Parts: sequence; structure tokens; C-alpha cells
Amino acid sequence: MNKAILLISCPDKKGIVAKVSNFLYTNNGNIEDADQHIDSQTNTFFMRIEWLLKGFKIPQADIAASFKKIADEFNMNWSIHYSSDIPRMAIFVSRFTHCLYDLLLRYREGQFNCTLPMIISNHKDAKPIAKNFNIPFYCFPKIKQNKLGVEKKEIDILKKEKIGTIVLARYTQIFSANFVREFPNRIINIHHSFLPAFIGSNPYKQAYRRGVKIIGATSHYVTEELDAGPIIEQDTVRVSHRDRLEDLRRKGEDLEKVVLSRAVRLHLERKVLVYNNKTVLFD
Amino acid sequence: MNKAILLISCPDKKGIVAKVSNFLYTNNGNIEDADQHIDSQTNTFFMRIEWLLKGFKIPQADIAASFKKIADEFNMNWSIHYSSDIPRMAIFVSRFTHCLYDLLLRYREGQFNCTLPMIISNHKDAKPIAKNFNIPFYCFPKIKQNKLGVEKKEIDILKKEKIGTIVLARYTQIFSANFVREFPNRIINIHHSFLPAFIGSNPYKQAYRRGVKIIGATSHYVTEELDAGPIIEQDTVRVSHRDRLEDLRRKGEDLEKVVLSRAVRLHLERKVLVYNNKTVLFD
Amino acid sequence: MNKAILLISCPDKKGIVAKVSNFLYTNNGNIEDADQHIDSQTNTFFMRIEWLLKGFKIPQADIAASFKKIADEFNMNWSIHYSSDIPRMAIFVSRFTHCLYDLLLRYREGQFNCTLPMIISNHKDAKPIAKNFNIPFYCFPKIKQNKLGVEKKEIDILKKEKIGTIVLARYTQIFSANFVREFPNRIINIHHSFLPAFIGSNPYKQAYRRGVKIIGATSHYVTEELDAGPIIEQDTVRVSHRDRLEDLRRKGEDLEKVVLSRAVRLHLERKVLVYNNKTVLFD
Amino acid sequence: MNKAILLISCPDKKGIVAKVSNFLYTNNGNIEDADQHIDSQTNTFFMRIEWLLKGFKIPQADIAASFKKIADEFNMNWSIHYSSDIPRMAIFVSRFTHCLYDLLLRYREGQFNCTLPMIISNHKDAKPIAKNFNIPFYCFPKIKQNKLGVEKKEIDILKKEKIGTIVLARYTQIFSANFVREFPNRIINIHHSFLPAFIGSNPYKQAYRRGVKIIGATSHYVTEELDAGPIIEQDTVRVSHRDRLEDLRRKGEDLEKVVLSRAVRLHLERKVLVYNNKTVLFD
Repeated sequence: MNKAILLISCPDKKGIVAKVSNFLYTNNGNIEDADQHIDSQTNTFFMRIEWLLKGFKIPQADIAASFKKIADEFNMNWSIHYSSDIPRMAIFVSRFTHCLYDLLLRYREGQFNCTLPMIISNHKDAKPIAKNFNIPFYCFPKIKQNKLGVEKKEIDILKKEKIGTIVLARYTQIFSANFVREFPNRIINIHHSFLPAFIGSNPYKQAYRRGVKIIGATSHYVTEELDAGPIIEQDTVRVSHRDRLEDLRRKGEDLEKVVLSRAVRLHLERKVLVYNNKTVLFD
Repeated sequence: MNKAILLISCPDKKGIVAKVSNFLYTNNGNIEDADQHIDSQTNTFFMRIEWLLKGFKIPQADIAASFKKIADEFNMNWSIHYSSDIPRMAIFVSRFTHCLYDLLLRYREGQFNCTLPMIISNHKDAKPIAKNFNIPFYCFPKIKQNKLGVEKKEIDILKKEKIGTIVLARYTQIFSANFVREFPNRIINIHHSFLPAFIGSNPYKQAYRRGVKIIGATSHYVTEELDAGPIIEQDTVRVSHRDRLEDLRRKGEDLEKVVLSRAVRLHLERKVLVYNNKTVLFD
Repeated sequence: MNKAILLISCPDKKGIVAKVSNFLYTNNGNIEDADQHIDSQTNTFFMRIEWLLKGFKIPQADIAASFKKIADEFNMNWSIHYSSDIPRMAIFVSRFTHCLYDLLLRYREGQFNCTLPMIISNHKDAKPIAKNFNIPFYCFPKIKQNKLGVEKKEIDILKKEKIGTIVLARYTQIFSANFVREFPNRIINIHHSFLPAFIGSNPYKQAYRRGVKIIGATSHYVTEELDAGPIIEQDTVRVSHRDRLEDLRRKGEDLEKVVLSRAVRLHLERKVLVYNNKTVLFD
Repeated sequence: MNKAILLISCPDKKGIVAKVSNFLYTNNGNIEDADQHIDSQTNTFFMRIEWLLKGFKIPQADIAASFKKIADEFNMNWSIHYSSDIPRMAIFVSRFTHCLYDLLLRYREGQFNCTLPMIISNHKDAKPIAKNFNIPFYCFPKIKQNKLGVEKKEIDILKKEKIGTIVLARYTQIFSANFVREFPNRIINIHHSFLPAFIGSNPYKQAYRRGVKIIGATSHYVTEELDAGPIIEQDTVRVSHRDRLEDLRRKGEDLEKVVLSRAVRLHLERKVLVYNNKTVLFD
């Protein structure tokens, strides 16, 4: 059954909920799920509302135009999505394939509401996996000197295939600001540490050296500043002096898989709103 | 600033949110917090909405009567609360006083929005603590033979002091069905296990014997069936073969304190709705 | 490099460590890892000691006989293992294949020190997965009436293939006491609840109905009593009233995979000692 | 019953365990607890061994001298402690008193094997608490200009009272290098973040701004570099966009109390060995 999902953020003001819910009610909308949040510090109102389109009086094509009046009245940042528009997602991967495998298995089990038209890598290692799951595989090797040129090719194919969401499943290359700007709040990364601790490369080694008693993983949207984008999900696991570097890696990889998949799922279900470089999660 | 809190549960139907939010909007209500939940399995709608009374057109004394029309239309279970009516809470305790101490310290720090007119115990151990915190202390020893009679005295003093919430901070006596019925969904217990595992007495000993690798604590409303009421909050902590029974107890007591205080706080802030022997938490 | 692993449990007495460590030292043994534990309640001593065989004066074939004198003196339960004897493991699975897939991927990544000569199932669903990973697949459908007969066939093939460890990766059939007795402390099960809560079938449904705020998974050795064997590993994850039954299942499956794989790894590395229906973990 | 505790770290070599355990065995030592660890990366051996002095052939006064031969042979860093020498601990506190209260309650319950001859503060706020628990209270206000002078007074009284362990229970002043050097690996701090994230002041505010989904607390030994000493214990708790800064603080304070008390307990029981700015925990 086709549904609409409306995401709103705006300055908090009297009457927002009344206006939005009346809009749905008077048009015979059947609310399936609704969640709201008020950030009292910044006086900002956030809302996610999901309703069935069956029986809704306004045709799907006209909903956005109809809602615009309310949106303008309250100065809303807003977007509307339809469950019939299945998101198209691309996975980028390098040599470590545990997150890729995990995403593909969950995809096959139906955990992600999306199609997966491509896997892109700077290495060939993941090619047989892509083949096994029948996903087209593109290999774009990168070195410093050709980075911008290769990124242009990547952008071209991503746009041609109408990719809306990019998942970096332990992709080791850092994108240029230009690439990032093409996909604002649409590139989901997994960083193998509890950010903001251990930014950059080799976080497990950094954690091992520092002698932490807990390690973590962080999934966040990619912004121009390295490992500093809005955090979607994090989790941690206990380690001890008995754990060698390779044990940290093994324990951490279990976290990475779970944390990344939760973030991807929240994103695909339109449950993430970015605000002030933070996320509001309607979970 | 005085606020109203409205708690609703009813069969899900179109228009509930619109009607409720219009009621607030047309009467100039300023929503501070709102949360809702739809249980799709039972088609039940839940809502908690909190608004400022300053500027609200309906006088506080008339709000309930005004809202009744909407409530009746949707066949709601509902209650309305005002932040100016500070809840009155009693703590029951026996010999273990760690939870009592923890509650009193949090109370003093202002974590609980309530007054605390009495501590009741079947032992004298907690008397000096009560004195230290200037809380009236009542000692009601109980044996099987006098239980109902003593409970009658307890009910009398609780009613006389208009106690709305009872917290069992490791109180070892089991209340009669009659007592429980006097305070439906208002008696909060802490059970020192991860319910429904290890119901009844000596849960740490049971856990030690079973050789579990994790122990827990559960805070729940007391119902007539032992340790079977609606669960408000739970938490767990890892243990190992190196932990003796006394280590389980020590680790567990830390859990008990945190779990019980979270449950009490949620309850006092009117963030708990009981439904089907489960809880909806508007946290 | 070939190593020996010695596992000991016995009544605690003066001189055990001295005798054992002298045995290794005088024979030029290079200890790689050693761990011990004293259960003061039952006065029992536990030890796991791992040393390099290179340079050890006693030939591998004679070590057990040489050590027997010390073992007898202290009335030890003991076993000795050599890293050159790679354990042989079988996986049993039914229709849910997430744990199977997880085990196979970890096996391929080298996380498990074993060979995997067979997957056995009472259904055909997992056959293509077994094929994909090049593991021989045996389908033994079972109904109540033919259970003992089918189990006999299973035992035959397990013995023929010298299987030492059996992993039940969400295998739904309950083994007869006879089968269990053939593999004492060698059948590892994953139960999808925080045991001893929700024993038996449909634990997620039981958890959903009870309204718990945390769910768990438990890996344990199979004994004749259902879900009551020695617990090897457990873990938990937070759920809320917003989680439907299918969300509990999805969250729980992530736990199942991690908990089962940790237990299998500990077992294969000879880090588990069973005692009084509990486990000592030398991790 | 009086016990000896021997702590050892040295380059790993054949025969260490044999020599140490023979030393105990031949002198009729009854081992109560023993734990060892080999750091294979640096080839370092660590050991903690605890035995009853009753019946031990070497008089307590001569044990250290007797053991010295073995220690020298293996080039050990070592220390020996006797349970009859109760550690003397001082608590430093500033304005936030939740950790102080928690430590005092645990102390009174007997969780810490120590005496507590003083509480030192740069403010007067904690004075009534100290009085309530009958602990001498010293107020040493500090400003930048008089810091070294005041520290001198603090050192004098700490030495006079033979304080071996200093606990900083949310003490806001940073000690000079000189002060720190007087108490190497003996000053235990609680930092209210998951180190190395959010070093320095206002970590909850930093965490709130960064929009993390988990917050933490870290207990560590104080070294000359701020918040960079060997980590003893850490723990984390989940937060969400619904949590305001004050909620982070409230949730975090529960962590602080538990994490600090665990670290203090491990330290007092001589279960912490510092090595390479990390800790080995014999728990």
C-alpha cells in the first residue's frame, strides 16, 4: 500500500501540528505513524508523519503543491516521499568486505527498502561477491593524481543510474569537497571508532595504543570535513588488556556491520533529519 | 510555569490528532512536547501532549470538562495532569537501603518532581537515614498473621497523606491483592533480576547457580501476580565465572539503583502509559 | 608452530601450579598463555596452559603419559590438545539461515580454527548456501515417528567423519537424550532469548507479549534438559514499545550471530571448561 | 586472615611461573588467587599472585628479601603488599558531590578495603557531607597565583597522613607536574567522557554539540599530560536527540559514579598494573 512520508523542520510556533493534522484529516488521510520533536534550545520543531495514500483526496501528483501553503506559512524546511518511489542505493567498498557482505545479506533478506544497482570499488577484491549477489560491479582505481577525474566518472554513473543514497562500506578513499556537495546528507559512512575519538586512519591501532577499555563504531553522513559529519548511529563493545590488535579488529568489525546497517535502514525509511550537523532520529 | 499534560489511549481512528491539536490551537495552547504511538497489532492510538497553561483560553478548572467531548467521541481512556499538582510519593523499604539512599540523594538533587512525605518500613534499619533526610518514618512490622491488619494501617496513612505513588525500594513483603487494587499502576517495584528470569526470592543466588553471563534488574508496576506486572525499565551488566555471589550482588545493586530511579522519574513525569500489561514510554 | 593446550580441573591443593609449571620448565616448555581460576565456594582449581612444542623435551606422543603422574596425584580431570589436531565441526540448521551464513563467512575469514566437513539440515533451504561455500550438505528430514532412526544415521555420519563439535545454528529439532549423550559438552546451541527467560519455542513472541525492554541471546551446551545446559555466552540489546515483533526478531538475529560465533570460537580454542553445569571461560 | 599479594612485570622468559610457584610451594604458601598475562607484542610477562600468610615458612618481614633473588634473576618490576596494611586514601572534590557521596556510601558499606582519613576540597560545599560521614575535611582554595604553594600544603598533609591513594571525585583543579610526580599511578581521576573523546573542560557540552549517540565516562591514573594517563575503566550509555544537555549530565553522572568506584576498587585490591601508559587488570 502506497504511503506518503512528510518530513518537516521549522521554527517552533503555535498551530503547526493543528495545521498539518487538519490538512491530512480534511483530505481523508489515514495516519500510520507520526513523531515530533521540539529542540527547546534552538526553538525548532521537527516532524515526521506517514499516511496511507489510499482514499486520500488529493492526487499524489498534487500533494506537494497543496502542502506548500502550510509549509510557506511556517517557513518550513520540508520534503515529501512516497513509498512507491523505491530509493536507489550504491555501495562503495575497498578491500575489507565484511560490511559489504553484511549489507548484501540484509538486502536479500528484505531488511532494506531499496534497489541496489551498483557496487563501486577502487579494487577488484569485491568483484566475485558482487557477481554472487548479481549486482553490477564497477572498478574505479584511484590515485592522488587522477582522483578528480575518476570522481567525475563516478558522479556520471551515479547520476545516470539515479542513485539517491551512497553507502561507504569501509571505502578507504576520501572524496573531494566537490563530490560530497553532489550528495548532501546522502553519503553514509562507517568509521571504525567511537567518534570523535580516533579520527582518521587506523583507529583500531590508535585505540590499542591508547589502551581504551571500550571500542566503538560510528555511522555518519559524509561532509567536507573528515569524520566530522552528522552522526546517525554509534555502538560500543568492551575490550581488555588480553585483546590484541587483531582482537580489537575482530570485535570492532561486528560493531561496524550492525551500526552501519542500522544507519542505512533509518536513512532509507526517511527517519533521519539533519540539523545543525546533528541528526534527529524518528525511530 | 504551569503546564498541562494529557495522556490518551484509544482505538486508532482518523482525526484524533487533528481534533486534539485543534482543541489546543484554537484555545491558544503552546505545545511544549508531544509524542504519539500507534500499536498496529491492536490498532490502538497513544498520545502524550504537554502544553503551557499561560495564555490558554480555558481556565484550568474547566479543561477536563471541555476536553470530555473529544474524549467521548473517540472513546478515549484519558487523564489530565497539571505540573502545579506536585505528586506525593511514599517509599517502602526493608533492610537493604542502597536503593533508598539513592532515591533520597536524587530527590535532594531535584531529579524527582514530587514531595516525599513518608518512608515506611517493616524494619527499623532505615530510620536514621530517614531522619538524616528529614523524611517522616513509619515502622510497620509484618508477620503473616497480621499482614492484612497492618496493610489497613498503611492504606489509611497513605490515603490520609494523599500519596499517589508508592516506590518499593527493595521492600521484601508481598502485598495482598486488596492493597494492590488500591493503587493500580501506582506501585513501582525493583526486582533484582532480568524478569521474567529468576522470579521470586534470591534472584542473585538463582543467577549464580544457573551460571548466567549477564545479570539484570527490572522495575515494574506491581500487580496481583508476583513479579508479573508491566515492565517500565530494565538494564543488564556482564558477569563472569570469576564473580562470586557477593560480586553479583554488588554489581546488581548498581543496576537496581539506576533502573529504579529511571522508572520513578518516567512515572513522575507522566511518561508511562500502561496497556495490555505492558508500558508505552514517552521518553 | 605446534602448541599443546592442557586443561585441568581438580580439588584445590597446595603445589598444583608448582608441579605443573615445573613439569613444563624442566622439559623446556615455552609457555605462551596460562590462566587459572579458583572457585572458593567449591574449593576447585581450574587451569588452562598453552605452550610451544618446539624444543619441548618430551615427544608429543608421550606427553599425556608423562603428565598422568601429576594428574593422578592431584586427582585431576584433564585433557590435552594439540594445535596440529584441527577440530572437525558440523553445523545443523533448519530454515532460518542467518546464523549459518554468519558462521560460514567467519569460517572463510579464518576466525574459526577448524574444518567444516558437513552441514546437516532437516530442510532443503540451506542447500544452495552450502554449495556456494563448498561444504557437503546432508538433508535429514525428521518427524516424531522417525526421529530416533534419523538420529542414528546422523550419528553414523558424524562419527564416520570424526566430528568433534556440533553447532546448532537455529536448528529446530530437539535431540533425544541418546544423541546428546554421544556428544557431551560438544553440541553448541544458540537460543534466541536471555536464558533462563523464555525457554522453549517462539521466545521473541514470548518477549513481545511480556513487554520486556531488553532482549537477549544465549549460547549454551546442549544437555538432556531443554535450554538448561551450561551457558557459554550471552548478550542483550535494548528494545522499546515502538518495536513490533518483527523488529524484535531483526534485532535479536544480530545478537544471535554474534553470541553464537563467540561461543564457537571459545570452544574451538579450548577456552571453555564445564563444571557444575556452568562454564569457566579462559578468555 | 593476612595475605600477601605479589605483583610482577618483566621480560617474558622460560621458568618464571615455575620459579615463583616453587618459591611459594616450598615455603608452604597457600595460593588464593593467581592471574597472569603475556603481552606477546612486547614480550612482557605480568603476574598477580595472592597467598595466605598463615603457615607460610618465611616471616612477613623477610619475604621481600627472600623473593629478591628471583626478582633479580628475571629482571622484574615487582611489589609486594600485605592485606594487613590497609591502604590510606584521600578524596579530592570540588562542587559536584555525586561521586563523593557515592564513594562514601560504598566505603561505609565495606566495598573499599581502605581507611579514609581526609577529604580535601577547593570549596566548602562538601563540608557537611564530610561531617555527616565523620571524615576530616580540609578546604584549600586555589587560584592560579597560589597553586604551587597550596599544593605544597596538600602534599605535606597527605604525606603526614601517609596517604597512598588519591581519588579525584570531580575535582576541577589541574595539578602541577610536581604534585603528580609525588604520587605516580596513585591519583585516580574520573573524566566525564569516553576518552580520548572530549578531553578537557565541559565534555558533556562538547558531546551535546557533536551530537553523539552514546556518552561515556573514564577513570584513569593522572599523569602530567591532561586526561592522557593510563585508563583503568570506562563505560558508556545511549543518548538520543531527545536528551538535552541536562539529560546528558544526569545520565553521565550515573556512569561516573559506577566507573570511578570500579576503578578505585580494582586499585585498592592491587589488581592494576601500569605498563606503557596502559593498564593490565587482574579482575
